[in-house]
Amino acid sequence: MTGQRRATGRGDEVSELDKRIIEHLQEDGRRPFTQIAADLGVSEAAVRARTNRLVDRGIIQVVGVTDPLKLGFQQMAMIGIRCEADRLMAVAAQVAEFPEVSYVVVTAGTYDILIETVCEDNDGLLRFLTDRLRTVDGVRETETFVYLRLVKQSYQWGTR
Amino acid sequence: MTGQRRATGRGDEVSELDKRIIEHLQEDGRRPFTQIAADLGVSEAAVRARTNRLVDRGIIQVVGVTDPLKLGFQQMAMIGIRCEADRLMAVAAQVAEFPEVSYVVVTAGTYDILIETVCEDNDGLLRFLTDRLRTVDGVRETETFVYLRLVKQSYQWGTR
Amino acid sequence: MTGQRRATGRGDEVSELDKRIIEHLQEDGRRPFTQIAADLGVSEAAVRARTNRLVDRGIIQVVGVTDPLKLGFQQMAMIGIRCEADRLMAVAAQVAEFPEVSYVVVTAGTYDILIETVCEDNDGLLRFLTDRLRTVDGVRETETFVYLRLVKQSYQWGTR
Amino acid sequence: MTGQRRATGRGDEVSELDKRIIEHLQEDGRRPFTQIAADLGVSEAAVRARTNRLVDRGIIQVVGVTDPLKLGFQQMAMIGIRCEADRLMAVAAQVAEFPEVSYVVVTAGTYDILIETVCEDNDGLLRFLTDRLRTVDGVRETETFVYLRLVKQSYQWGTR
Amino acid sequence: MTGQRRATGRGDEVSELDKRIIEHLQEDGRRPFTQIAADLGVSEAAVRARTNRLVDRGIIQVVGVTDPLKLGFQQMAMIGIRCEADRLMAVAAQVAEFPEVSYVVVTAGTYDILIETVCEDNDGLLRFLTDRLRTVDGVRETETFVYLRLVKQSYQWGTR
Amino acid sequence: MTGQRRATGRGDEVSELDKRIIEHLQEDGRRPFTQIAADLGVSEAAVRARTNRLVDRGIIQVVGVTDPLKLGFQQMAMIGIRCEADRLMAVAAQVAEFPEVSYVVVTAGTYDILIETVCEDNDGLLRFLTDRLRTVDGVRETETFVYLRLVKQSYQWGTR
Amino acid sequence: MTGQRRATGRGDEVSELDKRIIEHLQEDGRRPFTQIAADLGVSEAAVRARTNRLVDRGIIQVVGVTDPLKLGFQQMAMIGIRCEADRLMAVAAQVAEFPEVSYVVVTAGTYDILIETVCEDNDGLLRFLTDRLRTVDGVRETETFVYLRLVKQSYQWGTR
Amino acid sequence: MTGQRRATGRGDEVSELDKRIIEHLQEDGRRPFTQIAADLGVSEAAVRARTNRLVDRGIIQVVGVTDPLKLGFQQMAMIGIRCEADRLMAVAAQVAEFPEVSYVVVTAGTYDILIETVCEDNDGLLRFLTDRLRTVDGVRETETFVYLRLVKQSYQWGTR
Repeated sequence: MTGQRRATGRGDEVSELDKRIIEHLQEDGRRPFTQIAADLGVSEAAVRARTNRLVDRGIIQVVGVTDPLKLGFQQMAMIGIRCEADRLMAVAAQVAEFPEVSYVVVTAGTYDILIETVCEDNDGLLRFLTDRLRTVDGVRETETFVYLRLVKQSYQWGTR
Repeated sequence: MTGQRRATGRGDEVSELDKRIIEHLQEDGRRPFTQIAADLGVSEAAVRARTNRLVDRGIIQVVGVTDPLKLGFQQMAMIGIRCEADRLMAVAAQVAEFPEVSYVVVTAGTYDILIETVCEDNDGLLRFLTDRLRTVDGVRETETFVYLRLVKQSYQWGTR
Repeated sequence: MTGQRRATGRGDEVSELDKRIIEHLQEDGRRPFTQIAADLGVSEAAVRARTNRLVDRGIIQVVGVTDPLKLGFQQMAMIGIRCEADRLMAVAAQVAEFPEVSYVVVTAGTYDILIETVCEDNDGLLRFLTDRLRTVDGVRETETFVYLRLVKQSYQWGTR
Repeated sequence: MTGQRRATGRGDEVSELDKRIIEHLQEDGRRPFTQIAADLGVSEAAVRARTNRLVDRGIIQVVGVTDPLKLGFQQMAMIGIRCEADRLMAVAAQVAEFPEVSYVVVTAGTYDILIETVCEDNDGLLRFLTDRLRTVDGVRETETFVYLRLVKQSYQWGTR
Repeated sequence: MTGQRRATGRGDEVSELDKRIIEHLQEDGRRPFTQIAADLGVSEAAVRARTNRLVDRGIIQVVGVTDPLKLGFQQMAMIGIRCEADRLMAVAAQVAEFPEVSYVVVTAGTYDILIETVCEDNDGLLRFLTDRLRTVDGVRETETFVYLRLVKQSYQWGTR
Repeated sequence: MTGQRRATGRGDEVSELDKRIIEHLQEDGRRPFTQIAADLGVSEAAVRARTNRLVDRGIIQVVGVTDPLKLGFQQMAMIGIRCEADRLMAVAAQVAEFPEVSYVVVTAGTYDILIETVCEDNDGLLRFLTDRLRTVDGVRETETFVYLRLVKQSYQWGTR
Repeated sequence: MTGQRRATGRGDEVSELDKRIIEHLQEDGRRPFTQIAADLGVSEAAVRARTNRLVDRGIIQVVGVTDPLKLGFQQMAMIGIRCEADRLMAVAAQVAEFPEVSYVVVTAGTYDILIETVCEDNDGLLRFLTDRLRTVDGVRETETFVYLRLVKQSYQWGTR
Repeated sequence: MTGQRRATGRGDEVSELDKRIIEHLQEDGRRPFTQIAADLGVSEAAVRARTNRLVDRGIIQVVGVTDPLKLGFQQMAMIGIRCEADRLMAVAAQVAEFPEVSYVVVTAGTYDILIETVCEDNDGLLRFLTDRLRTVDGVRETETFVYLRLVKQSYQWGTR
């Protein structure tokens, strides 16, 4: 499974059963399929098949999420990017390829793109900025917000 | 398991075996413990016990991560917060309690705190801003970056 | 009819027939009801009744829209407002009462509220700023963008 | 009638009678010409002729004005634009051609141009930004203020 | 004659003859009244009387204008001031009393007030900031632009 | 006499007598030379000669200074300019040539250059911005602060 | 010897001989006094006495200057501070007492005070910000610039 | 000894004995080696050799540090630089060559690089900006913070 978002059409269908399964996995990513199946009144095979399909379609990823600051990555940062006017989506796509980049979102506001980076130390962040990010064609300006402490990281927002 | 970070001392020990397990779960949160145990040459019981302990200590959470914009939450946003000078950590702690808030990080730079919010629509975001965030004692100024598209969301940064 | 927005619930129903009438009036506010009725295959009384109801509910206003800069108002401006954290909606409501204010919108971004003002000259704008806007409890900071020329003003966006 | 502003010379004459008619239509765009004529002591034909002339000259447009946020346009925004130094008026003219753009004004201050856009949702706004606005030659930087709620929209400023 | 502006009503009348005299003095402040009188076809006494009246009314001041940077004032600066919302005019009036302040203007834009200061050196500017400007009730924030070189200073804009 | 500053070497000598004369003219630009001469204990011819020399050298200009806002110039503004890195002094020199520009100063801070402009109205300011200022090679960004009221304008800072 | 600046009057006399000694020590802080004395043609006792006096007066400090980033201090930062209007010098004095603070300067521009801090890691910087800096009465806003690499650090500017 | 930083690998070894010597020199740069040797229980030759080696490796410089503002340099400044995206390290290296520049640091935040400059007066700073800094290829934008008073300058942060 890849964390990279595929372009998905507006017609992406997520059924009500899909949503119930997603909510189970948001609460506990390792909850046994048998338990989810029992709760939803469907077969375990159906839960397994639908989960695999949701993963394949990039709707959900079941992962171990950690706090990088606690596992030896001393310099995480959010970086706001302003792009050349006509390079917005190209920059977003290219930046998403870098392994140091965990998160890429196109935003409305002062920045065009916000990314989160996970580096080991000052030198790692500096190398990322100079050798990677700022060589991307269309990056005009960057502003870096170094993380001092990660206070909350939650994925249990449910579905609508 | 809660996504809320507990204050952890600097002495937090994460053993090499812990790190190997974490890396397995970063790749696939549902990988069977037997498979991890075989790979690492330890017993399945040991993997299970250590995983539970890592979860209990808040070092890792195994979750289904989705793109809220695809599941009916039309207004996600990153919000930069500037606080009254002496209220920084108190604001961070209080904001982390709100269910709309998925992410809270204390940063160095233009903002004191960055948070991510997951709302259904304009009205939901406005209510969050007026009824929740801006009633928190010590919040001085907020700037909202509405998400237009989530391009990458990855958790496979490994360990050091 | 007042330009002042009433709080309207989320359940506001605008029927398909309402939308067709609205689109006629967006194209030409003075189009005779008989002509609209003929086009939509309903009675003129129905069009009239529904239009009145839409106006009463604040869904539409049929008005003569002019360029103030051409009618003797030499100093129009957009003003961005930042509010005390807990006074956002109260400020918006109070500012909307001022006759110089033609437009009030709550926004996400650098400003909390954007307003448009229509004044005769420098002194009028200064008096508005000092005697009205900046006496409103909860206004923390304002930034004024004086209009130099109005290039487009269109209301024909249709419905969805 | 078009909402697009024509360049008008400084000598534009708007007579006192024109102004009285305008004020009637600012109060109610559908007020019968007979009623306006009676109030002003002129013939209905004169009111009709002058109104048509004012509309043709782009001095007034009589339209149904709605709150787009209530009619299915979930992502309205004000966008501040900074232009290449020598492309200001060309950018304003070109941007005014886009159907998503309801308002274009050249301003003095932090931005060169402010525009209002009316889009259906996140994707619509993103497409507008990337496929339209940011391909305009001379657009250097944009900042987007997403609307959360429209509080006032009034056109009754009278004349001077 | 004082450089301090008196509040003047909108009805301030400046006659055409006044304007012609003003234009002469804008070109050369020491031009003899006899020469001005001859040029305008009025008596020298009339020119003198009107000039005195213009000076008394604060419409014009005839002064020797120098470049302070060349006369031993090493630290001139423009200072942008943001005020408490309801203290704008009071701050402007109070700041105008300080002898180091040569210019005070209320503006629309990022700052509420712009002032020019004329100080001898770093210490003089620092003392002005700490002992004078920032003790004024209602001054919220100041930003200082130190002058490096004065390139043009002209007063010959004529009249309209 | 021109308000345009000539480049003057650091060795510019202004004698003590020059300074005393300057101070007289700062107090009243029309003070008779005989009166100044008597006060300083030198001949009237000496005062006249030295004054002419100071004017010729661009050390002082004796002028009638008015408040443009009171004489028909409705749109004065301070404009902050940011330049292409290597065009700073060239921009300053070129901008100083424009008749609408009364003041040009090179500054340290957020802007490279601050200028004051004196225009009749919105259209005049817009034409200045688009037809003059923003066609200057090396102007990268401008921010305009429209004047609402001129509160103080003083030239009596003396000498050091 | 303390790095803390004492308030010194404007009359501080630094003789030409003092300046020559200072220049020797700027080049090499450990240069033997006998060598300096020989170069300047004075006695070693005179050089020693004057050096001690310069140190006692706070004119010079002879120190080993290192790059903290290379000696285990992983999070250095420059921090810009904006103060309550009337607390500028008091904040500067109080902040200078903190051991993490190596440099304090009062500036003209966007910030009132710039300080340099030397911390071991993220937690050290966060504790400095929350437990020290932001509890100082009069600190209104801070912006932190984390150091990624120190490229030059020179003290050989000579004297004038 | 040069203040210019050499690129040093991550493997730079600074022994515990080195650190103890550094701490002595941080306290007093002229402390006799015999005294340091006695305190640390090693020979004077060892202290001398290691100190020379630390200096040669650019780990420490022992210098006389003065307050330039007190020695005739009237215009010190911190300058924030924003670079063309791909020229960051090249700009830092080139700027470090200028003699007016005492300090160069690459930062995360609003600026890419912060430098400190030591100039004699306004003209010196202006010449540095126009003739040096802004001719460097890749410098996009600079913001200057003029120093008004240096309050603390300390080098005794120890080692870790």
